[in-house]
Amino acid sequence: MLEDKVRALASGKNFCVLTTLMEDGTPQSHVMWVDHDGEHLLINTEVHRHKFKNMAADPRVTVTIIDIESFYSYVEVRGKVVETVTGPAAREHIDRMSERYLGKPYDNPVKSERVIVKIAPVRQVVH
Amino acid sequence: MLEDKVRALASGKNFCVLTTLMEDGTPQSHVMWVDHDGEHLLINTEVHRHKFKNMAADPRVTVTIIDIESFYSYVEVRGKVVETVTGPAAREHIDRMSERYLGKPYDNPVKSERVIVKIAPVRQVVH
Repeated sequence: MLEDKVRALASGKNFCVLTTLMEDGTPQSHVMWVDHDGEHLLINTEVHRHKFKNMAADPRVTVTIIDIESFYSYVEVRGKVVETVTGPAAREHIDRMSERYLGKPYDNPVKSERVIVKIAPVRQVVH
Repeated sequence: MLEDKVRALASGKNFCVLTTLMEDGTPQSHVMWVDHDGEHLLINTEVHRHKFKNMAADPRVTVTIIDIESFYSYVEVRGKVVETVTGPAAREHIDRMSERYLGKPYDNPVKSERVIVKIAPVRQVVH
């Protein structure tokens, strides 16, 4: 299960830095929106993205969620990708996230296909 | 050389997420202060820290610097640790960084020894 502070931060308008591993093991990082379902952190991306291909090849990631009120308040979740969901559920999910962060449905062009990435925590460090 | 936006962000009161690699290649991430010398990004930590040991064993890191004004404005620097500096220079450096971020010299207890970690950029992605 996710720690209380992890769930709280992943329920608000807070951003995360997602780190994935490239083919040769080098880390790659991006600032992303983040969500959760109580048990997993949820990231929503597109299937053609390098970071998605990275996670398909090596499921190990870190998700560092920073409190938008203070960079001194953050959580580091080391975890593993355990499930991915494409189709209408992924499109609805990005619209819900966009409503939360921007107050409107997601209107960026979708180049390939949206995908929900479910990340199970392995270690959660609260700062 | 560092990109203009990387230098600008690493000159202000902006925070970074530093990702290092653990012994088994799993990523580990922390929110940190960040500085630069024009050519390298500079991180200041202590020699007993896990992240320092990680960088000594595998120099590959990412430094994601986020504009404190907006999470949509950030840079990802993939780089390699090329030099470390301990001694009085490292202590003076953390005091200068503390003046910049907090307006006073660094007054947290130092458990082992401060160290400047110099990171040369391999790839710089500006968002």
